[in-house]
Amino acid sequence: MPSPVRLPVLPSAPRAPARARDFLHEDHEKKEKCGVFAVWGQGEKTGPAGRGGDGAAVVYMGLFAQQHRGQEAAGIAVTDARTLQGVTGQGLVADALSAPVLASLEERPILGAVGHTRYSTAGGSLACNAQPLVESYIGGQVAVAHNGNLVNARALRRKFEEAGHLFHTTSDTEVVVHLLASPEQQRSVDPLAATLRHLQGAFSLVFLFPDRIEAARDPWGWRPLVLGRLADGRAVIASETVALQVVGAALVREVEPGEIVTLSDGGVSSRRFADPAPALAQCVFEHVYFAHPASAVFGRNVQIVREALGERLAREAPVEADFVMPMPDSGRSAAIGYARASGIGYREGIVPNRYVGRTFIKPTQAQRAAAVRLKLNVVGEIVRGRRVVVVDDSIVRGTTTRAKIEQLREAGAREIHLRISCPPIRHPCYFGVDFATREQLIAHDRTIDQIRAYLGVDTLHYLSLEGTLACVGLPARDCCTACWSGDYRIDLEHPLTEDEVAEKRQLRMFT
Amino acid sequence: MPSPVRLPVLPSAPRAPARARDFLHEDHEKKEKCGVFAVWGQGEKTGPAGRGGDGAAVVYMGLFAQQHRGQEAAGIAVTDARTLQGVTGQGLVADALSAPVLASLEERPILGAVGHTRYSTAGGSLACNAQPLVESYIGGQVAVAHNGNLVNARALRRKFEEAGHLFHTTSDTEVVVHLLASPEQQRSVDPLAATLRHLQGAFSLVFLFPDRIEAARDPWGWRPLVLGRLADGRAVIASETVALQVVGAALVREVEPGEIVTLSDGGVSSRRFADPAPALAQCVFEHVYFAHPASAVFGRNVQIVREALGERLAREAPVEADFVMPMPDSGRSAAIGYARASGIGYREGIVPNRYVGRTFIKPTQAQRAAAVRLKLNVVGEIVRGRRVVVVDDSIVRGTTTRAKIEQLREAGAREIHLRISCPPIRHPCYFGVDFATREQLIAHDRTIDQIRAYLGVDTLHYLSLEGTLACVGLPARDCCTACWSGDYRIDLEHPLTEDEVAEKRQLRMFT
Amino acid sequence: MPSPVRLPVLPSAPRAPARARDFLHEDHEKKEKCGVFAVWGQGEKTGPAGRGGDGAAVVYMGLFAQQHRGQEAAGIAVTDARTLQGVTGQGLVADALSAPVLASLEERPILGAVGHTRYSTAGGSLACNAQPLVESYIGGQVAVAHNGNLVNARALRRKFEEAGHLFHTTSDTEVVVHLLASPEQQRSVDPLAATLRHLQGAFSLVFLFPDRIEAARDPWGWRPLVLGRLADGRAVIASETVALQVVGAALVREVEPGEIVTLSDGGVSSRRFADPAPALAQCVFEHVYFAHPASAVFGRNVQIVREALGERLAREAPVEADFVMPMPDSGRSAAIGYARASGIGYREGIVPNRYVGRTFIKPTQAQRAAAVRLKLNVVGEIVRGRRVVVVDDSIVRGTTTRAKIEQLREAGAREIHLRISCPPIRHPCYFGVDFATREQLIAHDRTIDQIRAYLGVDTLHYLSLEGTLACVGLPARDCCTACWSGDYRIDLEHPLTEDEVAEKRQLRMFT
Amino acid sequence: MPSPVRLPVLPSAPRAPARARDFLHEDHEKKEKCGVFAVWGQGEKTGPAGRGGDGAAVVYMGLFAQQHRGQEAAGIAVTDARTLQGVTGQGLVADALSAPVLASLEERPILGAVGHTRYSTAGGSLACNAQPLVESYIGGQVAVAHNGNLVNARALRRKFEEAGHLFHTTSDTEVVVHLLASPEQQRSVDPLAATLRHLQGAFSLVFLFPDRIEAARDPWGWRPLVLGRLADGRAVIASETVALQVVGAALVREVEPGEIVTLSDGGVSSRRFADPAPALAQCVFEHVYFAHPASAVFGRNVQIVREALGERLAREAPVEADFVMPMPDSGRSAAIGYARASGIGYREGIVPNRYVGRTFIKPTQAQRAAAVRLKLNVVGEIVRGRRVVVVDDSIVRGTTTRAKIEQLREAGAREIHLRISCPPIRHPCYFGVDFATREQLIAHDRTIDQIRAYLGVDTLHYLSLEGTLACVGLPARDCCTACWSGDYRIDLEHPLTEDEVAEKRQLRMFT
Repeated sequence: MPSPVRLPVLPSAPRAPARARDFLHEDHEKKEKCGVFAVWGQGEKTGPAGRGGDGAAVVYMGLFAQQHRGQEAAGIAVTDARTLQGVTGQGLVADALSAPVLASLEERPILGAVGHTRYSTAGGSLACNAQPLVESYIGGQVAVAHNGNLVNARALRRKFEEAGHLFHTTSDTEVVVHLLASPEQQRSVDPLAATLRHLQGAFSLVFLFPDRIEAARDPWGWRPLVLGRLADGRAVIASETVALQVVGAALVREVEPGEIVTLSDGGVSSRRFADPAPALAQCVFEHVYFAHPASAVFGRNVQIVREALGERLAREAPVEADFVMPMPDSGRSAAIGYARASGIGYREGIVPNRYVGRTFIKPTQAQRAAAVRLKLNVVGEIVRGRRVVVVDDSIVRGTTTRAKIEQLREAGAREIHLRISCPPIRHPCYFGVDFATREQLIAHDRTIDQIRAYLGVDTLHYLSLEGTLACVGLPARDCCTACWSGDYRIDLEHPLTEDEVAEKRQLRMFT
Repeated sequence: MPSPVRLPVLPSAPRAPARARDFLHEDHEKKEKCGVFAVWGQGEKTGPAGRGGDGAAVVYMGLFAQQHRGQEAAGIAVTDARTLQGVTGQGLVADALSAPVLASLEERPILGAVGHTRYSTAGGSLACNAQPLVESYIGGQVAVAHNGNLVNARALRRKFEEAGHLFHTTSDTEVVVHLLASPEQQRSVDPLAATLRHLQGAFSLVFLFPDRIEAARDPWGWRPLVLGRLADGRAVIASETVALQVVGAALVREVEPGEIVTLSDGGVSSRRFADPAPALAQCVFEHVYFAHPASAVFGRNVQIVREALGERLAREAPVEADFVMPMPDSGRSAAIGYARASGIGYREGIVPNRYVGRTFIKPTQAQRAAAVRLKLNVVGEIVRGRRVVVVDDSIVRGTTTRAKIEQLREAGAREIHLRISCPPIRHPCYFGVDFATREQLIAHDRTIDQIRAYLGVDTLHYLSLEGTLACVGLPARDCCTACWSGDYRIDLEHPLTEDEVAEKRQLRMFT
Repeated sequence: MPSPVRLPVLPSAPRAPARARDFLHEDHEKKEKCGVFAVWGQGEKTGPAGRGGDGAAVVYMGLFAQQHRGQEAAGIAVTDARTLQGVTGQGLVADALSAPVLASLEERPILGAVGHTRYSTAGGSLACNAQPLVESYIGGQVAVAHNGNLVNARALRRKFEEAGHLFHTTSDTEVVVHLLASPEQQRSVDPLAATLRHLQGAFSLVFLFPDRIEAARDPWGWRPLVLGRLADGRAVIASETVALQVVGAALVREVEPGEIVTLSDGGVSSRRFADPAPALAQCVFEHVYFAHPASAVFGRNVQIVREALGERLAREAPVEADFVMPMPDSGRSAAIGYARASGIGYREGIVPNRYVGRTFIKPTQAQRAAAVRLKLNVVGEIVRGRRVVVVDDSIVRGTTTRAKIEQLREAGAREIHLRISCPPIRHPCYFGVDFATREQLIAHDRTIDQIRAYLGVDTLHYLSLEGTLACVGLPARDCCTACWSGDYRIDLEHPLTEDEVAEKRQLRMFT
Repeated sequence: MPSPVRLPVLPSAPRAPARARDFLHEDHEKKEKCGVFAVWGQGEKTGPAGRGGDGAAVVYMGLFAQQHRGQEAAGIAVTDARTLQGVTGQGLVADALSAPVLASLEERPILGAVGHTRYSTAGGSLACNAQPLVESYIGGQVAVAHNGNLVNARALRRKFEEAGHLFHTTSDTEVVVHLLASPEQQRSVDPLAATLRHLQGAFSLVFLFPDRIEAARDPWGWRPLVLGRLADGRAVIASETVALQVVGAALVREVEPGEIVTLSDGGVSSRRFADPAPALAQCVFEHVYFAHPASAVFGRNVQIVREALGERLAREAPVEADFVMPMPDSGRSAAIGYARASGIGYREGIVPNRYVGRTFIKPTQAQRAAAVRLKLNVVGEIVRGRRVVVVDDSIVRGTTTRAKIEQLREAGAREIHLRISCPPIRHPCYFGVDFATREQLIAHDRTIDQIRAYLGVDTLHYLSLEGTLACVGLPARDCCTACWSGDYRIDLEHPLTEDEVAEKRQLRMFT
């Protein structure tokens, strides 16, 4: 495990006095787990008068395929080579981006388009935070869509506010554009690269300029970002390969940590804004929970990894039982793996209501409670009097799991053996997955047995960290495991000084 | 297998001349597969001023739990003991019945409430057909919600039209109210029972009168209908037991074929409007496809039946393969059963997009095509180079299945062995499931091998009729298997004369 | 003044027992003042694919021009020669009939189209009552739009209910279609004419059949109805000539009392369903208040009549004052006439807020109160310290007038002399204008001086009945003045027997 | 007439190079004529739980009363003492600010509230420009609503863009907040006053801070702004006195040119940010056209001024005719004055459709054309064969007037004598009224006779500038007459140097 890198934060931040603007703090802390998608080139005409180009429709489908990465808001921005136009809306893609709204985008020729799906946390999903952000600055217009979380966003924001800048969102993404617009960056040979070198944390970013798209991934490689190609030759960018599959694009390759890929009429080109970090910080939780099973993330298929996690779990934590069943839908692949390796039969004792969204990412506690009640139906005839192994991918707060277990008990399950296909989540993620605060994490300050008692199960086992890492098939040193281990790759408490930042830049960043 | 009962149709129908009103014929033919729900009693207050009663909210949840029975429209009607008020809307329950709409219902005390979800077929989903229908007649007001299909609806409608009656929907349900309102029925001791005795076909009906709910099930028992009881003692009626589970009600029993159950302030009472048919016609396809896996239908749990169908299928049509996988989500239970019985491993090679509805019940062909593209994601890493057994519950037109098989082929599956957990659907259903016209059914005039070739699979096997019936656990003589066997319980071509109807009534119907 | 005609009511009505369906009574009593419009012929193509025909757009504009005749709901029905399609919505025409809704109508060729605007009274504006009603019956489909009020609607409805018919609205219009659909009428040579002969009261009706439009006006001529012709030769029907003007049509003539005008591909034809009543009952209040000033009603321009009413008022009730001002906007024309005849200067001391609708036709008392507050702005600088003559067209409940007068007083008016350009409204209208119940009419049981005191004005004068009739320029015997005089043309208390009806039919109605 | 003041523009602006961001120029040029309203103090509770305070409702009514000042968008921002919350919407106040939206504002206590109505010009009404703008900066949050137009906004924006600032609207208002947020202003004793001293042009601004409202009016006094007091003692700010009247507030006084009025829990206080300009530039066109007739603007009632303009016009341009009529509704007051002074009778020959908005402020040319067709109805019986004097307040492009005149001709008017109650508009307004570009103004390069010929009238006369000024009752030197005379009070071509600005500041601005 590499030693933590101290954060090169801008000097004013640590000295910033406490201030009275509490109204933003809550949201400043907010992490966002999102999906981005982009396409360059005009393609087919789809607009009402046969004009337009299908760029907005392609992005729409790409967002739809990545809907699991955010259901709170969605947006698309397009360029006709001179002017950007953006739309955003609340809710699922199909609600946020209606047919008339898409048609309005297609009234002008669409040369390039970027899109974003977003979810937010307890505390509020503000309409003003929907992306892509469309901003005007000295260089013209730019639209930005962001997946990740910037740990130095607050410090940067403070610095800009002190210089008199305005902010109209509470999102960490807005500071990226302030950096880009700054004379310091505008004077540099490559303003965008200079901007990205200021960012600390996880970012897979897609920028739409009037004449091009630029896609960038942080040097640590926290979040996935891939480049694909449509049958007609157009280049696309997506968070996940499943979106390529849906729009009919072939995977070209991942965007590399520290890389900027440019899509324009001149084709696809690439440059680096920074060396990849000596030790990457690829998010293992993408494999465990977040990414789509049909996606290949960091080079490995998610479904296969999840089956392997279940198999390993069967070996690490065997138990005698009548059958193995998943917590639907999150535990299904691991449960199949567990059943296969254990030799115990696989059944499904809980059937989800397909018309309710995923619980994990609903914003309020009240909605979570209501969702549990409506979304799961236990098949009493199957579980009654049986000893069941229940496999799930993870436990965050524990409230949802506990409610499900209660339903199983009420239906008459005799023994419930809960198996979790990753280690206990004991630490918050500051890099793009919103679990909860430390205090809300059930495993934060409880022993396994305390958790077991709270959930009301007969036995409880988590997969070991070693077992987890072995299954994802990535070098341990290139993985972020902070939520389980607390080993944050960026030392959030002791950021780098400006001199250290400068030194680091000489060593490993391009200029 | 009992001999078909000839239909007691009213005499004018066969002689009805061809007419120019083709605009309605298409819809007259339409079968509807729907869900109904009802509750009597005031329960908790939920309205804005603490008035209201939670009847509308209970029905809302009940409809939500039965959303799989209809996604085209939903509606609720309520009574405050004197006046009925109804609302309907297009789309899913959550879209059709918004919070303000529910709140408007709750402005007055709600004593009883009934609800309906509905889907329709290619050819149009007319807003005017949304249920519950609310009508005014000599007896006051009545609201009706219907699951099933009346085969003599057109003849009855013609008779009423000739008598000068108006119709404002194209639904077969409207004739039920015309019958009820007729002097002939109004003069009888029990107008509702007299009305129901005129109906031929499948019907699970819920009537809301100002002072009571009446729930009735046809003498053949085609569609399910159950009575339940909430913890606070209130009685509820539902199409499926899963809705009882969601609203927190215990199952009391099924409403019996030929029975009317009355819910009112005086409690629950029961009477017969007809003897049960000597041979029932319980729809086996409810078990195969339509009902929720957590429901008990005709006394048996659906999920367990589906696993059994898969096990039987493994024994009837074994094959060597690398793994068994379901067509999601319809084939999952049978695939688990197939894997268990065959000893071949179970995996999931296709992952559905949870944000798209079920294909089978989307109304237009164009929407079906788009849905296939967006809704399924093949996990290429799993199927590539493998021999796979794919299990699905049924094949109707075959177009969707073919498209999915193509996706599997493109992903590199080496051999595809398709197994279907029921017999070939060769005949239309006139009793409440809208498959398609005879010509649209792929198995209508093709051999199994022709179907296999069309679908592009290496081998194709359907479960035998005997096998199917053995698994559902009902006496074969009490099951409708018309869609597979063509043995329609009601002879649609040779209806009974009026005298035969009268004779039959003496024999087996109460007056 | 001719003696009242006793009503030929169907015999069952007087014997009808009191019943418990109070929920409908209130609405049964409701009078509706509405506007109708119709056009036949395809005209220009306007649909998205250049199909469609502009019939729906022409009706839309015609309704918009008649918006003053109803702001609660609007609807359009169209025919493509085989099938009718209808849409209705709540609110103003522009809200009720959105662009997408109109576009959906234009997806098929539009051969003919009818439309309706509607308002309702305190007690509820039910969505189910929006027109045109579209019904299906033995003769096919028909859509109906109605301006007026049928005094025998309740009796007819009762008769049909007793015969087993259903009703799904509370509107008096629905009985018209039940009559049309009845075998009695269907057997006759001219079912529509036979239908209309059953109707008692005020009706200007437009029927859309798949292949034609039929427009009919009651034998008393209560409500206006005119025939026009577009520049391209297409025939149109409208409630008022102002709608012809807006759609660019020339006035051909009025539809005559007792006449049916047919519009079809064969051109325009006419027949009588009844002789005109020996004494017509043309509604003078159309001139006083309801019709548009630019319309010619019963052959005379409304604006000119209103100026004349004001002139006459000046001569009947002169007063010394500093200036004459109208109650905006209703009293403007009469105030101009009053100023001209009196020689007193004309000013406007109250300016209306153009963004609030007319008070008279808002449905609830609460909305009326709010409207007064927002809708009028007194120009204090003009009225302060002055003696003003305020002219208005009528006083119904008096509450609105009183509130306006209070505002004038608060602004400092020294003397307020109120002049009303028609007699006191002492009796309800049963023929299509919804004033209020008798008890709500301020003049019902008060002397002029009591009213004056209630309103808080210095002097109050109403125009005499003789003066009113002299100004409208119609023979007194051909006018309905019931709201002022109580002389109802139809004896509501002593309806005709069936024999008398038959005798009358022989005398004056065609068969 | 005072000599023009050269503009104190910031030095970088003139040197700014031509740039490629044409997409914004069009909108940068856009002038906005808007209405603002504000109230401080909690008042009655109105929220769902009896919390809230009625501040949002008071602002809503105030905006409604000022609806004539902008129909394109409306918005409200509120403070609960710590946090601001804002909502905006497109269209009329009643559409833009729905009941649920207002209710959502009232969920927290409302201590103060500001609102805005807005209209925009041909070229686009962007949703992002709706006000109040809510921004976050180093000082916390601020919301701004603006009536007027800043002539140095583009230069300031350029300067900020060069310093790296972002803009997310195209409105000139956004620069005001950038100024306020700048360290230069933040360091000053009174940041707001320092900000306002940078602004050149017309501005009546309302700022909402968490703990107070600040209302400011430019030193030239271009646009009205008044202070009022509700019966319960709360202070309100409005663009026009008519809004005070509607909310039940008494007029305290105008906000003076160069003044900042502060509303907070400490009461109302006042300070100056600048001396009033030696010669004010009060907009005479407010009296001629824009303001509500019931308002007192710059101390005089608008209706009375308009009557006086008509009387003067009768004396300056008499003609023989049968009657005088207004172009409704804009020419009514002047027509009444003309009739009074000329002794010719007053009639109304055109009746407007009350359900269509004002033509002048509809954004697109296409909408203007459609509006003319639907909105006016000529009373043919009145104008046919007559010699009419038509009085209107102004002519901008002439297209609407020409269409109306055509309608009069078609209705048979024999002679049409057009009288305009202000001089020809020959020059664009850069101070808050959006007429059009210079080229679009019909009087820009035409003689009166050419205009007369274009409009198709027999005679045409405009009121003289002297006559106009005499009627408004303000010293000519304190009026802006630029649209008629071209005498712009700020020399747009030769702005002041920085030194001159500094010198001026010493002379006449506070620090």
